[in-house]
Amino acid sequence: MAHSDVAAGTAQLPTSPHSVRQPVRIGLVGVGQQSREHLAPALLGLDTARITAITDPDRHTRNRLADRIGVPARFDSVEAMLAEGVIDGVVAACPPQAHEMIIDACLSAGLPVFIEKPPAVTTDALTQLVKKATDAGIPTAVGMNFRWAAPVMRLAELLANGRYGTASVIEIRHMAGKPRTGLWGLGLWESFLLAQVIHPVDLLLTLAASPVQQVRATSRLATDGGVLTSAHLDFDNGTVGTLLASTQAPRFEHRIEVTTSTGATLRLTGLADLTITGAPGAARDETRRWHPSPMDAGFHRTGFQGELLGFCDAVTTGSGFRPSLADLMPTYHVMDQLATPRRQQ
Amino acid sequence: MAHSDVAAGTAQLPTSPHSVRQPVRIGLVGVGQQSREHLAPALLGLDTARITAITDPDRHTRNRLADRIGVPARFDSVEAMLAEGVIDGVVAACPPQAHEMIIDACLSAGLPVFIEKPPAVTTDALTQLVKKATDAGIPTAVGMNFRWAAPVMRLAELLANGRYGTASVIEIRHMAGKPRTGLWGLGLWESFLLAQVIHPVDLLLTLAASPVQQVRATSRLATDGGVLTSAHLDFDNGTVGTLLASTQAPRFEHRIEVTTSTGATLRLTGLADLTITGAPGAARDETRRWHPSPMDAGFHRTGFQGELLGFCDAVTTGSGFRPSLADLMPTYHVMDQLATPRRQQ
Amino acid sequence: MAHSDVAAGTAQLPTSPHSVRQPVRIGLVGVGQQSREHLAPALLGLDTARITAITDPDRHTRNRLADRIGVPARFDSVEAMLAEGVIDGVVAACPPQAHEMIIDACLSAGLPVFIEKPPAVTTDALTQLVKKATDAGIPTAVGMNFRWAAPVMRLAELLANGRYGTASVIEIRHMAGKPRTGLWGLGLWESFLLAQVIHPVDLLLTLAASPVQQVRATSRLATDGGVLTSAHLDFDNGTVGTLLASTQAPRFEHRIEVTTSTGATLRLTGLADLTITGAPGAARDETRRWHPSPMDAGFHRTGFQGELLGFCDAVTTGSGFRPSLADLMPTYHVMDQLATPRRQQ
Amino acid sequence: MAHSDVAAGTAQLPTSPHSVRQPVRIGLVGVGQQSREHLAPALLGLDTARITAITDPDRHTRNRLADRIGVPARFDSVEAMLAEGVIDGVVAACPPQAHEMIIDACLSAGLPVFIEKPPAVTTDALTQLVKKATDAGIPTAVGMNFRWAAPVMRLAELLANGRYGTASVIEIRHMAGKPRTGLWGLGLWESFLLAQVIHPVDLLLTLAASPVQQVRATSRLATDGGVLTSAHLDFDNGTVGTLLASTQAPRFEHRIEVTTSTGATLRLTGLADLTITGAPGAARDETRRWHPSPMDAGFHRTGFQGELLGFCDAVTTGSGFRPSLADLMPTYHVMDQLATPRRQQ
Repeated sequence: MAHSDVAAGTAQLPTSPHSVRQPVRIGLVGVGQQSREHLAPALLGLDTARITAITDPDRHTRNRLADRIGVPARFDSVEAMLAEGVIDGVVAACPPQAHEMIIDACLSAGLPVFIEKPPAVTTDALTQLVKKATDAGIPTAVGMNFRWAAPVMRLAELLANGRYGTASVIEIRHMAGKPRTGLWGLGLWESFLLAQVIHPVDLLLTLAASPVQQVRATSRLATDGGVLTSAHLDFDNGTVGTLLASTQAPRFEHRIEVTTSTGATLRLTGLADLTITGAPGAARDETRRWHPSPMDAGFHRTGFQGELLGFCDAVTTGSGFRPSLADLMPTYHVMDQLATPRRQQ
Repeated sequence: MAHSDVAAGTAQLPTSPHSVRQPVRIGLVGVGQQSREHLAPALLGLDTARITAITDPDRHTRNRLADRIGVPARFDSVEAMLAEGVIDGVVAACPPQAHEMIIDACLSAGLPVFIEKPPAVTTDALTQLVKKATDAGIPTAVGMNFRWAAPVMRLAELLANGRYGTASVIEIRHMAGKPRTGLWGLGLWESFLLAQVIHPVDLLLTLAASPVQQVRATSRLATDGGVLTSAHLDFDNGTVGTLLASTQAPRFEHRIEVTTSTGATLRLTGLADLTITGAPGAARDETRRWHPSPMDAGFHRTGFQGELLGFCDAVTTGSGFRPSLADLMPTYHVMDQLATPRRQQ
Repeated sequence: MAHSDVAAGTAQLPTSPHSVRQPVRIGLVGVGQQSREHLAPALLGLDTARITAITDPDRHTRNRLADRIGVPARFDSVEAMLAEGVIDGVVAACPPQAHEMIIDACLSAGLPVFIEKPPAVTTDALTQLVKKATDAGIPTAVGMNFRWAAPVMRLAELLANGRYGTASVIEIRHMAGKPRTGLWGLGLWESFLLAQVIHPVDLLLTLAASPVQQVRATSRLATDGGVLTSAHLDFDNGTVGTLLASTQAPRFEHRIEVTTSTGATLRLTGLADLTITGAPGAARDETRRWHPSPMDAGFHRTGFQGELLGFCDAVTTGSGFRPSLADLMPTYHVMDQLATPRRQQ
Repeated sequence: MAHSDVAAGTAQLPTSPHSVRQPVRIGLVGVGQQSREHLAPALLGLDTARITAITDPDRHTRNRLADRIGVPARFDSVEAMLAEGVIDGVVAACPPQAHEMIIDACLSAGLPVFIEKPPAVTTDALTQLVKKATDAGIPTAVGMNFRWAAPVMRLAELLANGRYGTASVIEIRHMAGKPRTGLWGLGLWESFLLAQVIHPVDLLLTLAASPVQQVRATSRLATDGGVLTSAHLDFDNGTVGTLLASTQAPRFEHRIEVTTSTGATLRLTGLADLTITGAPGAARDETRRWHPSPMDAGFHRTGFQGELLGFCDAVTTGSGFRPSLADLMPTYHVMDQLATPRRQQ
């Protein structure tokens, strides 16, 4: 395998006045669906990134992807890739057990790492990784793309600017069709938490922007493998958060609904339609609505482009990224407090 | 004032082959907005009812209404009306303290009574009225029009027919702009419960069709008079119910959302748009939607016509009506368990 | 039949301080569905109207309605009713041939008349009635309830206030399930024009508020009886109007869509949802939406209450009403220019 | 690595069992917004394509794009690229005058060419190119991505399968904010036709699938540069097509609405929401709706991926592609028949 990488070649181009700041050389780890359909194409859309290496023990799938997007450097293991010195940062999407090892290896090698969620299997494991990252002073990033989705960021901005008052109630509905059986060698309940519930819990905490005071929940496990949790969170600042997550629906439904202290309702449906009812100055029953352009494509709306751009900035400037591994701790703590599910008769 | 009533005159018509069953002679008590805008016009649309008397101490408003809809018999008090013997049943919409007295008077007179919600101020008062009604064997009816709203009945039928499995989660959102101050001489919190919260609680209990196991809630009172309660109910049959009621929105928002054990979502928005996502046999992301005809008018959709028709049937046949006074007991019990609101800082 | 009528009795009441202006005594002619479901209940909601007589040769249906809403004076013919002198104006909903005779009789008797659409079968017949009304100086009114529907009036106001510029294009979609065979002894095409097409044509002319310059249309008649016309109208003021009317849909679909010179889109769907995209000051892709309250009931939204209130005002004050018979002339002229339908192979 | 192109390198990989069919080596011509934001990323998502050369005289922009997606071979002119022999087909997005020359050059070189719309400035120019392509027997493709948009293809399939009968009326609404001044050195009207109107006209003709019988239109040019055309098309098979295209809206609105002979309405809004009202077997007022997943990203929905995949297949197999240059002839003929716009006062 030839080891010269594309980014290096690029750097030699004398014609580019933009070469003052070099693109971040990214080593992509894992060539599963998440990498192939979201992370790799989102990275290809960034001027500030170059995928310069791809790592996966599944050589066939890895080579097909590498061929398609023109990445000559290919590795079987993270260790081999890290040893080569051809990258500035790692972007990884693997099972959570592998994530723990990849984070550890990157921190040991002193390399910034962007890890898809879930970053770890347990709160204990996450705690140890956070400690190691803090001690090492290496930037870490967790791929919670919902936080970076364009309409979620807009919603967060609208809440932050105070025009609508404060958030009285934040409700998140997150329905998916999987998992119906355990993933990654874990039980169904753990898999459900790590694959699905982590998203709305993290969003609730991000939007409430306050410590959690109390978590009350009812969880159920149906005989057909459907899992459901309905939770009620009280935050220190008085905001109430509710959460409905389930795998009973053979589709993906997503809705964030914020009721504010001024009586406005801000609703984001399907990560696309943002409506505001009761905006100051609007008519009594008036609803304002934004939605993506019919020609909207790419990875901006879904957050993948934004978070990877942010990671590249963090790598270049050495500044922090949110969410870091440490930022995920409250999310894991809430997941720990969701009751073990009752089996539905 | 001539006391001959319209219904009696009607009865003499020899040309009507439908006169076998006489229309129910209704005495309307209270000529406030609820009577003028909903109950009286809904009654006028029924072949089985005649408003034959109107009672209210406010003679001016009472006479204007009576003139408009052609009701010659007018009274200042329920007692005077009951003494006259010109009615078969009472329909009343007054403050709750008056409701208690009207119910008592009707039961004493042996006359069926349809009382707008709230039927009583306290659970104790309701309990005593229920006892008296049971002892007397007189049909009682409470005007919970949401139960009888055409699209709510359709939703209830869809749930009952089993095609969508059982209800895993029932969520009700009920936002209104009032009360912002106490009503009927009561405190703001009690007024909020009796004027607004009673509706979604009653709907939750009706749709869950199972005893309540546990009620957990967070309630808040904002400095501007806005009240909010977010509740989480566990039912014996495993259904979870959630409820958000608030007076912070200067408008009326209503939504019922049922997530079923087969993964379907049945959603009724604004008591008008009924959508079903994930119906058996439908495509994965398909949503089916019904909505009222553009020319829909009248009082069928809002439930007033249905409940009054049901009451007339109950009067004629002596059969029961749902909800009776007794049927409201669980609703009052849940309202008692909603936490006293914290004052929002 | 007892001839004492409610309105007369009402007028004698000394207790009413509002009797300075007497309610208009209405003679209702025709007890078909339109009268029973829309006109009679809408009239009952008006303080300024009293139904004091009902006329229909179908005694059974007439008496049932009269019993229900307490109207003692009942007649078999318009002539008999007019001779009695118990009414101030006529409201009629019958077949169009009868409308012609009723209008003629009312004008001869010097009595204002509100006639449901269609007021006449042919443009010639309408022309003669318009002439007679003009000569007699008697107010006439045609029941084009769409013009008076609350959201249509709002749309017209929004267009008139100039904030959105002028109407570049007005498109109306009017789909219904009937007629599939001829009505009133007329052919299918004439029935389609008089029962359905009259509505959107009249709305187009009302909203464009300019003389028609040119009408181009394609019309088709399917073998199953479905009729369809697609028309393109140029108005003197440069506005383009398009119209799609059809009876191929077994339901009622209605949409008005106005594209303005400032690039705004004002859309009224189902006579209920009014949205404005591109309002001045709004964000680029922002849509503003109003819709009826969940508790909306009655006959305000559908226009029946407004038009009958307007008619009563016209009767009381002797002022004009829009649309009068004369106002319908341009509508009939456009219908005459819609091409005779081709039979679809 | 030598500057031999990535695809060649890929071909040497012995590990790939998929290398039986070589990816098509694409020369991308033009690095404007359309290439950078749609064509290049869509090509990168295809296993069957490799961008092996990029051509544009603007070296700076070209090199930035080439650096970003790892394409070493870069050219200043199409002729230079064609001379190099490193590509199997051309994908070009340039001004229409350039398109004519690129097509001509590719046909002379015997190379298949995919040209973004508009393929030519005038019908005459297109006619000559069609003749040359036919004589040469070289596959040509025009980038009418709307035809290949996933929801448009679904709509076309639904129409083709006959369940809903035939299309009675097809209405297309296409509102955009540009051009407000002439593009490509052409007048405003020609620019409007070639940049915007070409899309809905081509869609109408595709969905109607029948020769055009008659075109009637009203066009206007406002003083602020907004252009508008409202057209009415009769097709041989009896289908009526209507079209509203305008640049008066500072946003992009798109809607296709098909009314079928069975009374169904198929509506595609914003190239995303597909609803069917009146499907056979559905309830009277039932609407069925599909919409993209919240996580939908990439270039499948917008048609770019599909059309480029189709072009690669055509290159590999030598089969035809739709639309070819010849397929655009009827579209150009309809555009020629749209009236020259009147200037709006």
